[in-house]
Amino acid sequence: MAKKRTSKSQKHIGQVPGTLIYTGQKKSNPLSIETFDYNLERFEEKEIIKIDDAFTYKSTESITWININGLNNTSEIEKIGKHYNLHPLILEDIVNTSQRPKIDEYDDYIFVVLKMLYYDSEEKVIAEQVSFVLGPNYVLSFQEAEGDVFDSVRDRIRHKKGRIRELGSDYLFYALIDAVTDHYYTIIETMGDKIEDLEDNLFNGQSQSEISQQIQNLKREVLKVRRAIFPLREIINRIEKTDNSLILPKTLHYYRDIYDHIIQISENIDIYREMIWGLMDMYMTSISNKMNEVMKVLTIIATIFIPLTFIAGIYGMNFENIPELKFKYGYYVLWAVMIILFLGMLYYFRRKKWL
Amino acid sequence: MAKKRTSKSQKHIGQVPGTLIYTGQKKSNPLSIETFDYNLERFEEKEIIKIDDAFTYKSTESITWININGLNNTSEIEKIGKHYNLHPLILEDIVNTSQRPKIDEYDDYIFVVLKMLYYDSEEKVIAEQVSFVLGPNYVLSFQEAEGDVFDSVRDRIRHKKGRIRELGSDYLFYALIDAVTDHYYTIIETMGDKIEDLEDNLFNGQSQSEISQQIQNLKREVLKVRRAIFPLREIINRIEKTDNSLILPKTLHYYRDIYDHIIQISENIDIYREMIWGLMDMYMTSISNKMNEVMKVLTIIATIFIPLTFIAGIYGMNFENIPELKFKYGYYVLWAVMIILFLGMLYYFRRKKWL
Amino acid sequence: MAKKRTSKSQKHIGQVPGTLIYTGQKKSNPLSIETFDYNLERFEEKEIIKIDDAFTYKSTESITWININGLNNTSEIEKIGKHYNLHPLILEDIVNTSQRPKIDEYDDYIFVVLKMLYYDSEEKVIAEQVSFVLGPNYVLSFQEAEGDVFDSVRDRIRHKKGRIRELGSDYLFYALIDAVTDHYYTIIETMGDKIEDLEDNLFNGQSQSEISQQIQNLKREVLKVRRAIFPLREIINRIEKTDNSLILPKTLHYYRDIYDHIIQISENIDIYREMIWGLMDMYMTSISNKMNEVMKVLTIIATIFIPLTFIAGIYGMNFENIPELKFKYGYYVLWAVMIILFLGMLYYFRRKKWL
Amino acid sequence: MAKKRTSKSQKHIGQVPGTLIYTGQKKSNPLSIETFDYNLERFEEKEIIKIDDAFTYKSTESITWININGLNNTSEIEKIGKHYNLHPLILEDIVNTSQRPKIDEYDDYIFVVLKMLYYDSEEKVIAEQVSFVLGPNYVLSFQEAEGDVFDSVRDRIRHKKGRIRELGSDYLFYALIDAVTDHYYTIIETMGDKIEDLEDNLFNGQSQSEISQQIQNLKREVLKVRRAIFPLREIINRIEKTDNSLILPKTLHYYRDIYDHIIQISENIDIYREMIWGLMDMYMTSISNKMNEVMKVLTIIATIFIPLTFIAGIYGMNFENIPELKFKYGYYVLWAVMIILFLGMLYYFRRKKWL
Amino acid sequence: MAKKRTSKSQKHIGQVPGTLIYTGQKKSNPLSIETFDYNLERFEEKEIIKIDDAFTYKSTESITWININGLNNTSEIEKIGKHYNLHPLILEDIVNTSQRPKIDEYDDYIFVVLKMLYYDSEEKVIAEQVSFVLGPNYVLSFQEAEGDVFDSVRDRIRHKKGRIRELGSDYLFYALIDAVTDHYYTIIETMGDKIEDLEDNLFNGQSQSEISQQIQNLKREVLKVRRAIFPLREIINRIEKTDNSLILPKTLHYYRDIYDHIIQISENIDIYREMIWGLMDMYMTSISNKMNEVMKVLTIIATIFIPLTFIAGIYGMNFENIPELKFKYGYYVLWAVMIILFLGMLYYFRRKKWL
Repeated sequence: MAKKRTSKSQKHIGQVPGTLIYTGQKKSNPLSIETFDYNLERFEEKEIIKIDDAFTYKSTESITWININGLNNTSEIEKIGKHYNLHPLILEDIVNTSQRPKIDEYDDYIFVVLKMLYYDSEEKVIAEQVSFVLGPNYVLSFQEAEGDVFDSVRDRIRHKKGRIRELGSDYLFYALIDAVTDHYYTIIETMGDKIEDLEDNLFNGQSQSEISQQIQNLKREVLKVRRAIFPLREIINRIEKTDNSLILPKTLHYYRDIYDHIIQISENIDIYREMIWGLMDMYMTSISNKMNEVMKVLTIIATIFIPLTFIAGIYGMNFENIPELKFKYGYYVLWAVMIILFLGMLYYFRRKKWL
Repeated sequence: MAKKRTSKSQKHIGQVPGTLIYTGQKKSNPLSIETFDYNLERFEEKEIIKIDDAFTYKSTESITWININGLNNTSEIEKIGKHYNLHPLILEDIVNTSQRPKIDEYDDYIFVVLKMLYYDSEEKVIAEQVSFVLGPNYVLSFQEAEGDVFDSVRDRIRHKKGRIRELGSDYLFYALIDAVTDHYYTIIETMGDKIEDLEDNLFNGQSQSEISQQIQNLKREVLKVRRAIFPLREIINRIEKTDNSLILPKTLHYYRDIYDHIIQISENIDIYREMIWGLMDMYMTSISNKMNEVMKVLTIIATIFIPLTFIAGIYGMNFENIPELKFKYGYYVLWAVMIILFLGMLYYFRRKKWL
Repeated sequence: MAKKRTSKSQKHIGQVPGTLIYTGQKKSNPLSIETFDYNLERFEEKEIIKIDDAFTYKSTESITWININGLNNTSEIEKIGKHYNLHPLILEDIVNTSQRPKIDEYDDYIFVVLKMLYYDSEEKVIAEQVSFVLGPNYVLSFQEAEGDVFDSVRDRIRHKKGRIRELGSDYLFYALIDAVTDHYYTIIETMGDKIEDLEDNLFNGQSQSEISQQIQNLKREVLKVRRAIFPLREIINRIEKTDNSLILPKTLHYYRDIYDHIIQISENIDIYREMIWGLMDMYMTSISNKMNEVMKVLTIIATIFIPLTFIAGIYGMNFENIPELKFKYGYYVLWAVMIILFLGMLYYFRRKKWL
Repeated sequence: MAKKRTSKSQKHIGQVPGTLIYTGQKKSNPLSIETFDYNLERFEEKEIIKIDDAFTYKSTESITWININGLNNTSEIEKIGKHYNLHPLILEDIVNTSQRPKIDEYDDYIFVVLKMLYYDSEEKVIAEQVSFVLGPNYVLSFQEAEGDVFDSVRDRIRHKKGRIRELGSDYLFYALIDAVTDHYYTIIETMGDKIEDLEDNLFNGQSQSEISQQIQNLKREVLKVRRAIFPLREIINRIEKTDNSLILPKTLHYYRDIYDHIIQISENIDIYREMIWGLMDMYMTSISNKMNEVMKVLTIIATIFIPLTFIAGIYGMNFENIPELKFKYGYYVLWAVMIILFLGMLYYFRRKKWL
Repeated sequence: MAKKRTSKSQKHIGQVPGTLIYTGQKKSNPLSIETFDYNLERFEEKEIIKIDDAFTYKSTESITWININGLNNTSEIEKIGKHYNLHPLILEDIVNTSQRPKIDEYDDYIFVVLKMLYYDSEEKVIAEQVSFVLGPNYVLSFQEAEGDVFDSVRDRIRHKKGRIRELGSDYLFYALIDAVTDHYYTIIETMGDKIEDLEDNLFNGQSQSEISQQIQNLKREVLKVRRAIFPLREIINRIEKTDNSLILPKTLHYYRDIYDHIIQISENIDIYREMIWGLMDMYMTSISNKMNEVMKVLTIIATIFIPLTFIAGIYGMNFENIPELKFKYGYYVLWAVMIILFLGMLYYFRRKKWL
């Protein structure tokens, strides 16, 4: 019955742990590397093609941010891994894009996987994986493809806005994570709009099976977003509680701020869940109401005309001796009787509030 | 499909952390500042326009309460922040009115965000954000607009009621939070009344789709209130357990009292939730019952008259040889038969309890 | 829409904390005070009117139980408070009868609020608040009105039954709480009976909207009882774990016993909840079943007679040339056909198990 | 409304704590006492009538198991209590057979209450209370009536099977609890069979109200069993974590084994719960399906014959000038038209998949 | 009612703890033993029939993996147990294949029970039990039958892929568990496909009772898989937190990796649960929609033709004096009236969106 599909994770089964296999769908994305190197006084921004060109930054005192787009080129990823001394399992996690958001602390770096959420052109939620490595004076970030939510961070570095140039790599790390989580608000809002639109449609005349399908789709969207966002609570929590010297105490308040945002977003998601279930209920009720109305029409018509038809039937009988048939005004009297009956019925239905 | 709406939070995305952007809707509210400065012997109450006028109080030993209405004027807020040495993130939280209730402890002050809940003129719940900063001998409070729930506190300071003039800023802090939470009781009660009213309407003749809409609205109202109140449990809990010297041990019992109130209110909200779900069930049942009744009427009418009409049809046939038609009293006999049948049906339905 | 009602809690809003305002409904209850003073050798029981008469007991070594009925007379309550050095918030809690059950530990006394549950004459659950203060050699109890569940305790003191006269005030405290919780069993049982009765009514012919209303009422009753009983688990738990010297280790087993009872009662309540929800389901199913039956009757009648009526209609037509009409036995043949059709239908319905 | 019933627990209300009142239903069961006294070398088994005959074992070094059947004879129970120095509350719990499963640790013994579950002859679940006291070299067990699940333990003692004769009273204690929990598996399986049987009946023709009743009964059975078994998790957990010297470290692995069984049984029960709720859903769906089918039959018949009857009605009219009536083959043409209409309808319904 | 079935667990009840009884269904599987013995330099692979042949490996320094297929031959299992000094309860757990996944730590070995999940040829989930014992330089694995998921591990040992030959028995242990959990992904995906297929079928014309049955089956499958996988979270967690020297700190990151996978799989399962419940809702809605449609057809037909039939009935009456009957064009006028009525009805239904 179930057709066989080749799938992301199956490619991975049975491999030696630490084998790099890119599991995303953006196969044709070329590798592109962006580097920022800055301190309070100066900054340098480069676009490079070979990862080796970035390795000189490792020994400098200044803060370095290396942003790698395109995970398809696993050999280059492996080179970075070797240069920065990353554990093979981390490299595996970077290229396996079906990771759950998570944090791994090692002695000399912290590894975090997040999901950037977008709505694509068909209004579907897309989750793109982005991984961060925070080291003593560097941050590495790995994305599946170009195009991200970090423009405001780049801007701040370039134009020395805020305190980013004054503080260390832990603040840069914060700023990047903050940019990702900030973007969740737009997702949340689009979702809220969708729910409102659907609610309006419930009472306008839209095909019923469509609505049922839309509700089901929304439920899934909420589940998907929830799954991308909820693990963040634990991640930020662990950053806040870490005793790793990579995170300086004075940046902890910033992480606390992200935590508050995540809680707020999570609560919104849970409220949306409840609202969608409420929609389902309202939808079921509206179906029942419609059926009720259909039944009422049928009942009113049948209840009025079936007895009248019976009366007409009576006087359509061919008995030789039906005295009423011979009365001169019999026909008119009968009409009067039927009209009275008709009005009586109407009155009865109005009293029952069916009309 | 989803129309684009400009929204509160989107304004904020991509900003440098610590940027002050007022996200509330009361844009045109002018800044107005109220100051209370008191100790056991004396008190002074002023209404000022420029925040600088309030700065002299910082160095005095007496307790100072500075209440700022109108968060639109972010530059003045920033001045206070600088004077009282508040963290930029806190200032951002004060003017961003879509905060979740929360507490942040710093070394020399405690920051708390709460929601004041009101019913507006259309019986909708409005949540106005109010932020507090508790310092060694001062309390700052920030509201979106004038009009609040603190009149009883002002009164107590002015007329030396209770112990407020004897105790320190931590008691003032308590008194303000207590005023906010006390007001939740009125919300809870109005909500309880609404549920009762809706319950009465279920059985009176109100349009069905209206009721379904009202139930859905009530559900949301409960969710909204819940969201404003539930985080308070953790906030008060953390105040109780703090080892911050700003909260003196002898005021802890007062915070415990607030905690008990919050628990009680929270329980009420959860009970309302259950009751509203119960209403939904009753409503579904009442729809089913009505449909049942409609069906019964139809069935009774059809079951009685369809056979009778059949009989009339029989004797309306034009066979040349139907002996009954020629009987002298055939017509009367037939009526008798039909009346007996009719009564038999009635008896049957009565035995089935359908009449 | 929502009518304004004066309500308990509103009276309280905006008051100075510690203000005594009686919020119960038994306004006209006069104050009545009962005192027991006993040790192993002797006991003394008095009924007094002024609280001052009881103050001599404070200095004695013997155990004293002062039971105050009627909380309307707040000035007398205040006197006790002053004499026994009770915190103003405790006095406020004693007279505010909408408290949630709770425990407050102070240095030299423990304060507990409980709910006594009764069924009144209309089979409604009434929750009367009772507060206890346990001191080194005394127990104070405060009730809204006379009439309580402590007769067995009085008896044991008077007749030296059990160990009550041998042990200290902590055992008396236990005995009083035990009397309150023991009484919950009767509530639980009446509730169980009600559920069983309702279950029987489901299948007997009771008006449907009535049953739906009764189920909703039962749900609320369970919620109310649950709310009165569940906090007790935490209260007893905290008594067991206290390091307060007022509770001697040798009475701890007795509190453990209460704890076991509370757990058992709580489990019963949760089971009742599930049973009531089950009733709702059964009720919905029974409505559906009834509708099904109504539909079947309609369908059977209509399916049998509509075709027969059609046939009769055919031979009621006035075509000049319908050969069958001229057959001598045409009419009888037709009857035969119709009877065969009728029997065929019956057979069909019987095979479909509709008859 | 609610009839008064004398009930177990009411007998108990208002009693001095520690009063022995048997609350079970097996009033006429005579007391019967079984004793086993054994060590590695020898064993002795006796059936005695007076409890005093068992008291000689207390001073011996060998392991003693005293099994008391029949809790009606409270004075004998009290004698044992006095001899083994048991707390009055424990004796009260032994004879009060509506206890919840629980554990109480005292300095020199451990007290455990369990429920033995049986299916009686009417396939109803019966929960019989059994209490154990584990002392330094003895185990006491108390049952309501003769007949239990301990035959395998007796056998092992008699025939020196397994390690029971080598180990101490803590192993005997384990063996008895293990025998009780092992028996739960049969309960679980019968329950699983019942669910399967009910599932089969859903689709066979069984009266609908019966099925609804059976589902409700099964739900209750699951609740009852759950209530008897779930507390065991905590009980075994506490035995495992106890620092009481009565339980030797080397038997801990055996208790761990029981714990695993209990978890497994509990999971089964929860799965059954879900399955029963699923049955309810399937049942509701099957009702809806049946109603759907009834409606289809009605609609098909009515939709086919109502228009045909209308046509016949047209030509039954008595207008003087209806030209069709005079056509020679008018009648036959009409039949042709009606048959075509009939076939068209059939085709329409078949395309709609109603036939 | 419930038929007696001989069942797995019943065989076990009342046995001496530690008795080896194979409870699986693969009775006829012959014992087959595979041994791997390797270190960095060399490896040796053998297939043996008698367990004694494997015992020489115990004393060597190299890592040994002994894989036993077929648990029917309990005497051989007992021999291994004796040789490797395993606790009797562990041996009992190995052959009792209805174990819940679990971990037991002993001083010199760790025992883990897992479930391998397969889809059999009928697309049913099969759970085969596999047990592992990790010792200082060996791993024992026990399976019910040949055929497993370990081929990739064998390969890595044979061809020195990855780090398996460099590391100790704890890494081998990890590699085996990892192979089991990796395979869960295929289960998860097949399940996802099944849900999608079922969703498609909802809207295609499949028999309704079939769909209801399929949904119920899927629910059970999810429950079964959940039950096999969820305990793993605790198992891996305990391995990570163990202070047992068998697990070296440097392999801990690998176990963390398994943990992440398990969490991801568990989340998927929970999402499937929600989706299946959503399907049930959609299915119920689709039934209601269909019923609604049936009712509409009936109502439209009846509402149109019942009044028309009544009109025809009127002019079928045999009154002597019905003037309309004598009009020359009466018949044609009537047709016009009826056609207008018919069109009016159609218009009404179209406005009501029923057509």
